[in-house]
Amino acid sequence: MKYAIEFKHETLRVVDQTLLPARYKEIEIKTLAAAWNAIKTLKVRGAPLIGVFAAYSVWVGIRNVNTASHESLRKKIDSVIDYLRTSRPTAVNLFWALERVRETVKTSKITSVPSLKKLVLDEAKRIDAEDKELCRLMGEHGVKLFKPGDRILTHCNTGFLATAGDGTALSVIYEAARRYKKVKVYSDETRPLLQGSRLTVWELMRRKVDVTQICDNTAGYLMQKGMIDRAIVGADRITANGGVANKIGTYTVAVLCYTHGIPFYVAAPSTTFDLKIEDISQIPIEERSSDEVCSVFGARIAPEGANALNYAFDTTPPELITAIITEKGVIRPPYKKNIAKIIGK
Amino acid sequence: MKYAIEFKHETLRVVDQTLLPARYKEIEIKTLAAAWNAIKTLKVRGAPLIGVFAAYSVWVGIRNVNTASHESLRKKIDSVIDYLRTSRPTAVNLFWALERVRETVKTSKITSVPSLKKLVLDEAKRIDAEDKELCRLMGEHGVKLFKPGDRILTHCNTGFLATAGDGTALSVIYEAARRYKKVKVYSDETRPLLQGSRLTVWELMRRKVDVTQICDNTAGYLMQKGMIDRAIVGADRITANGGVANKIGTYTVAVLCYTHGIPFYVAAPSTTFDLKIEDISQIPIEERSSDEVCSVFGARIAPEGANALNYAFDTTPPELITAIITEKGVIRPPYKKNIAKIIGK
Repeated sequence: MKYAIEFKHETLRVVDQTLLPARYKEIEIKTLAAAWNAIKTLKVRGAPLIGVFAAYSVWVGIRNVNTASHESLRKKIDSVIDYLRTSRPTAVNLFWALERVRETVKTSKITSVPSLKKLVLDEAKRIDAEDKELCRLMGEHGVKLFKPGDRILTHCNTGFLATAGDGTALSVIYEAARRYKKVKVYSDETRPLLQGSRLTVWELMRRKVDVTQICDNTAGYLMQKGMIDRAIVGADRITANGGVANKIGTYTVAVLCYTHGIPFYVAAPSTTFDLKIEDISQIPIEERSSDEVCSVFGARIAPEGANALNYAFDTTPPELITAIITEKGVIRPPYKKNIAKIIGK
Repeated sequence: MKYAIEFKHETLRVVDQTLLPARYKEIEIKTLAAAWNAIKTLKVRGAPLIGVFAAYSVWVGIRNVNTASHESLRKKIDSVIDYLRTSRPTAVNLFWALERVRETVKTSKITSVPSLKKLVLDEAKRIDAEDKELCRLMGEHGVKLFKPGDRILTHCNTGFLATAGDGTALSVIYEAARRYKKVKVYSDETRPLLQGSRLTVWELMRRKVDVTQICDNTAGYLMQKGMIDRAIVGADRITANGGVANKIGTYTVAVLCYTHGIPFYVAAPSTTFDLKIEDISQIPIEERSSDEVCSVFGARIAPEGANALNYAFDTTPPELITAIITEKGVIRPPYKKNIAKIIGK
């Protein structure tokens, strides 16, 4: 499989991400229960990937429904969607993709049961193809900012394990590695959940891109030694003035880049922009359980009863960001004006 | 026990640091083999603590020697010292303390066996007391830079688990917590070996100082949110112009402090200064095994065969350092002049 998800010959397959990086295993999703479980237990993760997977899962949930009545099938589709929504109650892309399928079914006039099933599957395929195209376009636009021999820092996981295609920031890196010689990647391990070491390093190794893992506290020293040429990360949310919320540690990377005169890029599809939000001070940041900070892979690293603070994300102000790469092109400062021009309409 | 080492009623006791933070256990060191093993297996760690422990260990190794000849005892002392030197071949403080005991014995004219044994023990006690006094003085000088309610960031372990007394940077924090109300500490976990979460958090909890553990990539965001008032770290080596080599991640903390206008202090005894070295570009930095980066507590966090870079230390230029706290007083810029005045003579 080239990506983390594949639909071929009426078969839905995904990479079981809970086994990475120790073991690579593709699993076939044959039932609705298995699909629900795959999202719930994080076998499938990464916001865009969850959306695509959920859309296919609706079809998995109805393909064997034995009825001649399209009304009955429509009811079943609704209940399957409602059920899938419960698999991960905070995943915006999950809801978005499921409601898109629901709306497509609702507004269609189809009365044939096989055609209605095909409609669901076609919509899932469309969501899949669209996501792959977004990734491809970010890669194509972003790669122009890179050069042969670039030594690139990245943070967290933004690649084919997080999307249906090559990813966001990693899509740009993959494109750079395809086009240019001697591209070298440094991957922050990304504590507490280690998406960098577990997933990004694994992805890049699988695609034979030169990658070196570092602890999150090491990037600054590499910059001091002149070992980093540019940094690129993804985004969870981007404000109207170009501020970015992303995985905890992103802000520190941005400050370090700024201090060392190293370009700092953000790659994200236009759906990541929230133009109702003016700046980063208005973004609520999720605080997660201190257990994630106090343990690693089940091993306790802090004393029993220790306090720990676990902000899952942080925010980076626009003045630290050299450019934002989207499927619609590269956005440069002044962000307020250029984001409105390219994204807002 | 108040510290990590205690000599009382002719008994040498230490905290077994390999069991922390899960379990607190004091062990009595009854034999030379046990002493050697305690250093070798990192039960006793922290450069100054190793030195003090090694000095006492010489006495442990000779106290039961049954001879009437002071020449024979002198030979035995030499061989015990030679043996202890092999326990950790790169520990400068270990050699320093052992050679100091050797020199004391060599230059003494004592011919009585009991008196010679007492001489060894007295020298160990002196090294112990001196180290405690260094810690106390750093605390006393440094605390003047702090205020009630301070929220202090620290990195790695620099406390009573690393010295015979209260520590270097942590000694200042302990003194601040004793004198001022509502002092709050944030401890970087300090990957890869997690001295922050395993040792510093444990120490501060044991002394009932308010401490919160964070991942190394989180401090920057806390500074952005105005949650940190000052940072203090230890040092492995300080150059003639005030540059500092210290645990990997220190430089990033310094850059973040500078960016946010937060004072960044270094606390270290005057023995840490290496005035033959002009600036940080001349400090060799140890690169350690990539296994430390690829695993945590034995759990593999990276794919098999992954590249990883593991600089154990980094370097911080003097312009990022607000003040250096030593037992001789607080040194401020211009460092070249003031270090020469206070340290060099």
